[in-house]
Amino acid sequence: MALKTCEQYKESLRQLRPNVHKFDELIEDVTTHPATRRTVEGHGWTFRAAQDEELRDRFVTTSHLTGDPVSRYLSIIRAPEDMYANSQMKRLMFHLTGTCTGGRCAGWSALNAMFAATWDMDHDLGTDYHQRFLAWLADAQARDIALSGALTDPKGDRTRKPSEQDDEDMFLHVVERRPDGIVVRGAKVMICGVAAANEIFILPGSAYKEADTDYAISFVIPRDIAGLTIVETRHPSDIRDVEPGFDNPVTQGGITQAYLFFEDVFVPNERVFMCGEHKYTLSAVQNFIMPYRSAIGGCVAGQGDIKIGSALLVARANGLPAKVFSDKIVRMQINNETTFGLGIAAAARGRKHPSGAWLCDPLLANVNKVHVASLPYETSFLAQDIAGGIAETGCMPSSKDFESKKYGHLIKKYMKAVVSAEARTRAARLVEWCTIGGGVPGCLHGGGSPDGARLVIRLAGDLEKKVEIARRLAEIDEDIPEPTRKG
Amino acid sequence: MALKTCEQYKESLRQLRPNVHKFDELIEDVTTHPATRRTVEGHGWTFRAAQDEELRDRFVTTSHLTGDPVSRYLSIIRAPEDMYANSQMKRLMFHLTGTCTGGRCAGWSALNAMFAATWDMDHDLGTDYHQRFLAWLADAQARDIALSGALTDPKGDRTRKPSEQDDEDMFLHVVERRPDGIVVRGAKVMICGVAAANEIFILPGSAYKEADTDYAISFVIPRDIAGLTIVETRHPSDIRDVEPGFDNPVTQGGITQAYLFFEDVFVPNERVFMCGEHKYTLSAVQNFIMPYRSAIGGCVAGQGDIKIGSALLVARANGLPAKVFSDKIVRMQINNETTFGLGIAAAARGRKHPSGAWLCDPLLANVNKVHVASLPYETSFLAQDIAGGIAETGCMPSSKDFESKKYGHLIKKYMKAVVSAEARTRAARLVEWCTIGGGVPGCLHGGGSPDGARLVIRLAGDLEKKVEIARRLAEIDEDIPEPTRKG
Amino acid sequence: MALKTCEQYKESLRQLRPNVHKFDELIEDVTTHPATRRTVEGHGWTFRAAQDEELRDRFVTTSHLTGDPVSRYLSIIRAPEDMYANSQMKRLMFHLTGTCTGGRCAGWSALNAMFAATWDMDHDLGTDYHQRFLAWLADAQARDIALSGALTDPKGDRTRKPSEQDDEDMFLHVVERRPDGIVVRGAKVMICGVAAANEIFILPGSAYKEADTDYAISFVIPRDIAGLTIVETRHPSDIRDVEPGFDNPVTQGGITQAYLFFEDVFVPNERVFMCGEHKYTLSAVQNFIMPYRSAIGGCVAGQGDIKIGSALLVARANGLPAKVFSDKIVRMQINNETTFGLGIAAAARGRKHPSGAWLCDPLLANVNKVHVASLPYETSFLAQDIAGGIAETGCMPSSKDFESKKYGHLIKKYMKAVVSAEARTRAARLVEWCTIGGGVPGCLHGGGSPDGARLVIRLAGDLEKKVEIARRLAEIDEDIPEPTRKG
Amino acid sequence: MALKTCEQYKESLRQLRPNVHKFDELIEDVTTHPATRRTVEGHGWTFRAAQDEELRDRFVTTSHLTGDPVSRYLSIIRAPEDMYANSQMKRLMFHLTGTCTGGRCAGWSALNAMFAATWDMDHDLGTDYHQRFLAWLADAQARDIALSGALTDPKGDRTRKPSEQDDEDMFLHVVERRPDGIVVRGAKVMICGVAAANEIFILPGSAYKEADTDYAISFVIPRDIAGLTIVETRHPSDIRDVEPGFDNPVTQGGITQAYLFFEDVFVPNERVFMCGEHKYTLSAVQNFIMPYRSAIGGCVAGQGDIKIGSALLVARANGLPAKVFSDKIVRMQINNETTFGLGIAAAARGRKHPSGAWLCDPLLANVNKVHVASLPYETSFLAQDIAGGIAETGCMPSSKDFESKKYGHLIKKYMKAVVSAEARTRAARLVEWCTIGGGVPGCLHGGGSPDGARLVIRLAGDLEKKVEIARRLAEIDEDIPEPTRKG
Repeated sequence: MALKTCEQYKESLRQLRPNVHKFDELIEDVTTHPATRRTVEGHGWTFRAAQDEELRDRFVTTSHLTGDPVSRYLSIIRAPEDMYANSQMKRLMFHLTGTCTGGRCAGWSALNAMFAATWDMDHDLGTDYHQRFLAWLADAQARDIALSGALTDPKGDRTRKPSEQDDEDMFLHVVERRPDGIVVRGAKVMICGVAAANEIFILPGSAYKEADTDYAISFVIPRDIAGLTIVETRHPSDIRDVEPGFDNPVTQGGITQAYLFFEDVFVPNERVFMCGEHKYTLSAVQNFIMPYRSAIGGCVAGQGDIKIGSALLVARANGLPAKVFSDKIVRMQINNETTFGLGIAAAARGRKHPSGAWLCDPLLANVNKVHVASLPYETSFLAQDIAGGIAETGCMPSSKDFESKKYGHLIKKYMKAVVSAEARTRAARLVEWCTIGGGVPGCLHGGGSPDGARLVIRLAGDLEKKVEIARRLAEIDEDIPEPTRKG
Repeated sequence: MALKTCEQYKESLRQLRPNVHKFDELIEDVTTHPATRRTVEGHGWTFRAAQDEELRDRFVTTSHLTGDPVSRYLSIIRAPEDMYANSQMKRLMFHLTGTCTGGRCAGWSALNAMFAATWDMDHDLGTDYHQRFLAWLADAQARDIALSGALTDPKGDRTRKPSEQDDEDMFLHVVERRPDGIVVRGAKVMICGVAAANEIFILPGSAYKEADTDYAISFVIPRDIAGLTIVETRHPSDIRDVEPGFDNPVTQGGITQAYLFFEDVFVPNERVFMCGEHKYTLSAVQNFIMPYRSAIGGCVAGQGDIKIGSALLVARANGLPAKVFSDKIVRMQINNETTFGLGIAAAARGRKHPSGAWLCDPLLANVNKVHVASLPYETSFLAQDIAGGIAETGCMPSSKDFESKKYGHLIKKYMKAVVSAEARTRAARLVEWCTIGGGVPGCLHGGGSPDGARLVIRLAGDLEKKVEIARRLAEIDEDIPEPTRKG
Repeated sequence: MALKTCEQYKESLRQLRPNVHKFDELIEDVTTHPATRRTVEGHGWTFRAAQDEELRDRFVTTSHLTGDPVSRYLSIIRAPEDMYANSQMKRLMFHLTGTCTGGRCAGWSALNAMFAATWDMDHDLGTDYHQRFLAWLADAQARDIALSGALTDPKGDRTRKPSEQDDEDMFLHVVERRPDGIVVRGAKVMICGVAAANEIFILPGSAYKEADTDYAISFVIPRDIAGLTIVETRHPSDIRDVEPGFDNPVTQGGITQAYLFFEDVFVPNERVFMCGEHKYTLSAVQNFIMPYRSAIGGCVAGQGDIKIGSALLVARANGLPAKVFSDKIVRMQINNETTFGLGIAAAARGRKHPSGAWLCDPLLANVNKVHVASLPYETSFLAQDIAGGIAETGCMPSSKDFESKKYGHLIKKYMKAVVSAEARTRAARLVEWCTIGGGVPGCLHGGGSPDGARLVIRLAGDLEKKVEIARRLAEIDEDIPEPTRKG
Repeated sequence: MALKTCEQYKESLRQLRPNVHKFDELIEDVTTHPATRRTVEGHGWTFRAAQDEELRDRFVTTSHLTGDPVSRYLSIIRAPEDMYANSQMKRLMFHLTGTCTGGRCAGWSALNAMFAATWDMDHDLGTDYHQRFLAWLADAQARDIALSGALTDPKGDRTRKPSEQDDEDMFLHVVERRPDGIVVRGAKVMICGVAAANEIFILPGSAYKEADTDYAISFVIPRDIAGLTIVETRHPSDIRDVEPGFDNPVTQGGITQAYLFFEDVFVPNERVFMCGEHKYTLSAVQNFIMPYRSAIGGCVAGQGDIKIGSALLVARANGLPAKVFSDKIVRMQINNETTFGLGIAAAARGRKHPSGAWLCDPLLANVNKVHVASLPYETSFLAQDIAGGIAETGCMPSSKDFESKKYGHLIKKYMKAVVSAEARTRAARLVEWCTIGGGVPGCLHGGGSPDGARLVIRLAGDLEKKVEIARRLAEIDEDIPEPTRKG
């Protein structure tokens, strides 16, 4: 089958059994319900772009399995250039949709993670996971599915391992192994873009030891699989999504993050890629976060571009030229290019895995994670600084008030500056939306916390070597060992 | 009359003509309507506290006019200790309400500004503004009113003065001078706490020159004065205020910011404190911003305390002790005490005005403004960092979903950590509320922009003296004058 | 005796037995030797200023013991205004000398610390330390001595207490108690301004427990006491101090920091203010660091003023007006006023000790310490940024090369910009001197490390109260206790 | 000729006519004189490494002109991998020498800049500069010379162009065009590593317009060419270089920065690569700064590694394990990898020039420049923070005092902690040296100022496109043009 059109994609979503809820309501059609249609539109751009003459090259690549054109989101990263293309595509996706289309992103990182991990398991253990995986992937490429990915477990008491929890379901786990498949129970939480996905790729949420063997599982499921209940979470100002008017001015993109509840879900063997091989959970997770933490630099840069653009729109609407804010804009650009660039660097400094996968450099990917978690806050602050008080907390009357017969004319009179009241308000609403509203994508903890990244950085730092370099330079002959702390 | 009880205060609000709107709806009773009741509750704490044995000393002082006990919010600042008390009171108000009760704060700064400015006008020009003002103030103290303050004009094209605007109404101005009073037209925008106020104190929004004489006006009006239409603006996630459940977990406080439209409003002379004396607009504005930019350090510190407390609540709920986040918490504390302390310093380094007013130090007050505009962003970031992904963007199911008959039990099962799902969620919602939700008080531009403060700082810096000090130290005899730029 | 003139002060130094060394050389006359004369000149300004009509008020106050005029450096801090005056005096001292005159500063903090601590001991234990102290102080005031202060011990292995060290001398301690006095052994290190001092006030370097009773000592000694050997340390570019020319352009001030070796020094009882009362070491140290960490905000601001002035001098010499660097200069000003202001705030928020001493607020004083340790680095960076490559590392030919007969004319030709080569070079050397040269005063660790300050901040933060405030606001009934970490 | 050994390299320097001076003294032999021998040793490592089995691969590449093995410092950058190798080599050079070996770095950037620029001139104008250049390069490779590069002119009044200066010599320029060559006059200032170079590659210091045609010159000269006088500048604590002992503990590397005075120097045509083609000065300068500002990320990271290592050495010597400083070390690592990574990214995102040169991405290279100018200050601050007061300003007795017969034993007793006094002191001296001493390489302004980089960033930011993206997302139909400022 060829690459889907956007309409075919939406139709494929409509074919799924409704199992997505919000506000205790079952969403019958995710493509039209106001709580989910923006994220569907956003993900729809990945299909629209693949059909667009100008954008196609950024979104379509060649399957190394079949040689057919496939969506980049379903491709295997086999060279630095594949990663560069991904960073650029993600930045462009933010330009097109204003926010995160994290369903396909996480799915793409997940499938790449298991491409290498299944190869390792087959190589070391003689399993056939990699073959299962390749069969599924070729089929997924042929069907051009939107695939999301899910890692994060509820986790309960953070100081205890899965098997030590009071409730053993706090991490997703196998409860039954059958000849034809496995039965799983538990939950995955804060999962992005599920409402816009055809299928969901499941990974272990962390690295596990032997005691937690039952938690070492990876598989892929249709979004509407029996036994799976999905509840969409709130995001800031999310009710504006369901209101008419322009208080959320963006209709081409939006975020959803869901809680997935697995009540004894059966997964057939051909879709199971790990079951009990706990020694491979570490590399599965690492293989996920390396491309994720690299390419997310492009996401953050893309949204930073919008913060610059929308802040300047408000400034212009207020009659103020860009040069008034020159230092601030340059700082915003520096933040954008720092995360974008470090993602590129992590790719450039990567290495080839024997499976053919290209693995990004862990040190640079994690340094980027720390920047991705923090720099957007400064960029948002600067956008609000430039755009002024109306943008800072969206301190403007609602669009319903704009239409008031009683006083709408006063709002339009007094909100006007050098452009119309509505244009000025839309611009300020866009700043609000992407700095303190529904467009904020959760880059602090998304893809793991910065403290986790700092731990990797510390371990990757080879401090002993640095100490030796210094010792040699200072011409110290004496041995100066690391103290063993007493106090 | 004695200090009002909270109930008497609410009753006084109910006596006002309804003229506050939101979503094109007239709010009949601001004390019960969900869009305004939280801010009324918040301001109500200032009355409750004045009756509370333990809190009373922080909220009540002695009128220098009558010797009677009066609300600190209606008192004249006559000594550094009055300012220290205000900084502490504001910090405490955040502890009690979670957010800004800016109605009374701005009103208090406004009346103090005009106390000194009217004295100056009477002294220089032989007017009787100060006597009018004192008469009104004594009465206001006796009635124990909640007074808000309003400065900001719509401003139109920011590069043009009021009289240069295409629409002369873009700044509030006198359109008619009658024997018994004046008629004003225009608007004041982004005005905090109006819904919780009995009266509104109006100040010029900026310093004006002769051409803008008609814009040099100050007066005080009942909130429900004829010709005044009030429209409340949106704030982030404001619909949660009108929802049942705990998605906004705070019921004791809330922010409103209004647009005030003056359609030829008549103000009687006894309530007019400036009309045309443009030379005094500069000091009126400065007298406003000095105590405001000083004491707001207490506000920001108070909300910072809540950010620390709520982030630790989530951490505890997750099973993590405070020491894991020690560096981050210390950083948050430093941010809080920096703004609190600089407000104290601006007060300590102030000077006595001949009217008896105590004027804070402009340099330190403006340095504080820059910190107040930026440090809370870092504190918010750190709160989200500690509290994790569920707090960052409030990524949790709605409280309606908690009650779902279909899957509410699953949410409660999986949101639970070392405390119940609801307790953990409420804590995370509080972090969300005060970092990216309805509790964010707009401290970047509130009370004027940081760029405005930077301008004052630069002018107050006495660079020439610093250059001289350096020249003497370096033993340079040669004169090194400031270049007159050619390029 | 009246307040000394600068010449009388120098003469008093010349009367002392030579016991100060540098580069294995005994310095016969500290007032003329190039390694020490700059610090003597700097401290000399405190005497000169006390005689100067214009400056006198800042430097002279009234002895609360005798009612006589005394140097502020020998006065007891009894009110917030005394602290404000000290912050201002210290800022002014940097303006006059370009750098730290830390001898008298530390001495003044030390005597104030023991004023309160001796009162406490006498009150609790019936000792007569306070009377001894007052007798010494009245005499010291009458003699108008320059007093330095010494706390820091060598410390050896940082994880061990004094009595646990392999070498028991790693902290200064009593080795013999005689009827008429005590004998002490050990060292104090990195002690500022000793070369310019008549006497040295010794404090315990840390808070000690019972096992370290012999280390709980405080006393005051003449700088030339028998058994005391003083070795001055290097500071950056210190050889320029002994060179002719203007490579160190500052002759009015300079820093020395010494190592003091006590080889069984006898101290008579009347000069001993603590000996074994380990329970009072904590408050002695705290009483020292509170005024020190408060008023040092004035020091850092004063040097920051010079950084601004000297950077602008170079900019002007290059033909560039201040407005080109407006944002940077405002940032430098903010840094200066932040530390200055927080010192004021710590004083304003202090409390009265029963002895009559005014004790600064520990939380604000320690917050200031963290800023004092870090903000000057940014201010230095900005000064170098403005002043350009020649200032960054002082990248200019030596003043000896300026005078070269062979190529001196070429240097003068090419170093010239809009002012003479020498004026431009002197300005750039001043930037170098106070950002990467001999004028850098060690504000990171001086007066204790920022990590120590952070510890105090954390303990003073009352986290439990903040958690309670948050719990009440979020309307959480459930108890959420601090976890006891397992992992 | 084969690659030189280190000894052959030194011999080649000894063959040059002495024309380097410091302190008004002619340096007869740069390889042994204490003012220059450290930089010669440092540059010597580039030759030593090329002979070292283990290091050779990092330092030697293949000449694309001859196919022979050549020093990477004399190679043309033709692919991203060449840039990666350079970043790594530079980081390694800091590990080997502790500091900048900027002679060869600047020379290598300069020759690469003119490789492309001469190609362009020949292509556009029919000149033969590229052929001249290639002939010289092949010969330089064969001779394996150490080549430094020089751009910066004295510049005089910064607001005037070269031809507008009072003294026309303030920028290096042609004063005579002869048939066989040109005569040049003027100076180049703050030139790194000249004392260690055989030849110097001269570039225009800025982009020039037609009026400044005579300033548009590029050529290469032997360091000892007739008419060239070289004066080495001071650097912080440079006298320690000429002292015995370990107060500068590093003997394997050191920095020199020279002023070069050209008194009518004749350059033969075959060594002239630009003379009057002002239109190509912009690309010549840009071609220089792109690889320079990219690869300098490796330098700064390399020195950052030493700051980490040396700070940890002091901590260990004090008995403190690394985990006490974990957050600080991770921050230092992040700074290091950020500049290293962005250099890699600028290379990865570069483009091929028709000459075959690989040109780094200007936006990312300049973003890196801003980080390179600032992050090392934070890294230095953290190193001093960890290493404590003795390292902050090198507050320790001199090594001469260590050897004192009178009190050397006391220094050794009290400087000892868990390692010997000398080892501890050497470690602290290394921290001092690379944070506030002679090892600080001037990365703020080296290779151009950060403000210059910010200008490039702003221009490269394509703000109009960002505004358009925002306008489309906010669904604003109205045109919102950039205001033309009136005020």
